[in-house]
Amino acid sequence: MGFDAQSEYRGAAAVNPMVSAVYAGCARIDCVSSDNRGLNYGDGVFETMRVDHGGLPLWPRHLARLGEGAQRLGIALPERAFIEARLHEICAGVDAGVIKLLLTRGDGGRGYAPSVDAPPVWVLSLHPLPPKQTALQLHACNTRLATQPLLAGIKHCNRLEQVLARTEAQRAGCDEGLMRDMAGNAVCATAANLLAYCDGRWLTPPIEHCGVAGVLRGWLLEQGMLEVAELSMDALAAADALTLCNAVRGILPVARLGARSWRAQPAVAALQTALAKDYPMYSNTVELA
Amino acid sequence: MGFDAQSEYRGAAAVNPMVSAVYAGCARIDCVSSDNRGLNYGDGVFETMRVDHGGLPLWPRHLARLGEGAQRLGIALPERAFIEARLHEICAGVDAGVIKLLLTRGDGGRGYAPSVDAPPVWVLSLHPLPPKQTALQLHACNTRLATQPLLAGIKHCNRLEQVLARTEAQRAGCDEGLMRDMAGNAVCATAANLLAYCDGRWLTPPIEHCGVAGVLRGWLLEQGMLEVAELSMDALAAADALTLCNAVRGILPVARLGARSWRAQPAVAALQTALAKDYPMYSNTVELA
Repeated sequence: MGFDAQSEYRGAAAVNPMVSAVYAGCARIDCVSSDNRGLNYGDGVFETMRVDHGGLPLWPRHLARLGEGAQRLGIALPERAFIEARLHEICAGVDAGVIKLLLTRGDGGRGYAPSVDAPPVWVLSLHPLPPKQTALQLHACNTRLATQPLLAGIKHCNRLEQVLARTEAQRAGCDEGLMRDMAGNAVCATAANLLAYCDGRWLTPPIEHCGVAGVLRGWLLEQGMLEVAELSMDALAAADALTLCNAVRGILPVARLGARSWRAQPAVAALQTALAKDYPMYSNTVELA
Repeated sequence: MGFDAQSEYRGAAAVNPMVSAVYAGCARIDCVSSDNRGLNYGDGVFETMRVDHGGLPLWPRHLARLGEGAQRLGIALPERAFIEARLHEICAGVDAGVIKLLLTRGDGGRGYAPSVDAPPVWVLSLHPLPPKQTALQLHACNTRLATQPLLAGIKHCNRLEQVLARTEAQRAGCDEGLMRDMAGNAVCATAANLLAYCDGRWLTPPIEHCGVAGVLRGWLLEQGMLEVAELSMDALAAADALTLCNAVRGILPVARLGARSWRAQPAVAALQTALAKDYPMYSNTVELA
């Protein structure tokens, strides 16, 4: 199935989906039109979800973010029951994997004005779970995140900044790229939220101006295990531990960022254990040697 | 052919392409994959070009911008001779129309890291020329343009800001939306560059932080008919005339922006005449009553 074990982090080759289906509203269609607004303008939102024993444990959080993104962009959500039925079909019998849901505004090519009558076109694809990842080598990218409150927090499809930053990280031989805002403060990695352990507290940057409201970030904040705080590069260098978290991999420790490196830190194991207690699918994350 | 006379500016319905073709590198393919990076991340660039008597008079300028965009994003350009042959085929016998060339990085769905081996996937589509437009009603949009020097100037496919702004303009019953930067200075319209006639000189905002380097804007600058200058909203209100220009419509006068309205201004006619001298296809633009 063309699965390259290094692809997600090294990007040497694309991960071909195991299963993929395209819908216009509630109708299955053969393929995406070249007129599709997602294709032409990145006019859409997406969710990337971890499949566990035929289910999607974090679905309610993904749905909430999907709904907020669609609402902010004015894209109609396909009927919820229909989406959930399709997700159920695609998850059935899958022990572990990743499902991506891409929701676009549908067709209506030239001209930025959305077509009022076009149904949303959306894609479900099932992908293999990426391989176990040991601690991450993080590259501080030169590509900065622009300030745009209207798009901050949601998982929209305008991702050229992340594409450029991930390319930088790849060239540097690193697993992931640290992205800063225009003021130089740390915000996130290209595909994960950033957590820093400082003076006995786990901190994560605000996402009101740029960045994505990750579902695990949201869970950790609700649990009171995480606080929002500005994080300068000096603050990261002074941190006792850094981790990245996303819904595919859970919480992974950062081993190195530039000249700074970190060894095993009990606070990381404690956070991973707390997450695994509610979400056992993340229990197999690897700790720093 | 589903052509709505008001569609480009009012956006009531999509303009269905008259002809459309999808290519992977130099191979014709049936349709765009749901794995396409343009679809998933807006990972591409595009050009919208005016067809005149079977040719594309501004092609060299469009090609130059397409090349710069592809180079900045690290997307391979399909073989130039092949692109030009396909354009020649699609233009042949077309008296007047619009051709859109959309160039995406190709397939390689999940994960931001580009796949090194995937050929670029690109789309050519021929559209009817939009109807003659009288002077434009311009709406000052609340949607601001984010500062991102890495993407400024090129015609990339991350266009959610333009989609949101055009939606605002539509709701306000206007033809186009004026977009400002985060500092509140005017930059452009959602699909055109902005020119302001102030104290006997035509001025247009800089595009180093946001905005697109329009091909007609470039031509006017080279001719010495236009100068780059910051334009505040007060400067626009004080201007003797405003026009919008793009490669589809040429130069069109702005009749109203908020409380400010403008009547016919000889400097606008002079600019239109100068453009039509080198590019007669723009000679039929309408002047203010």
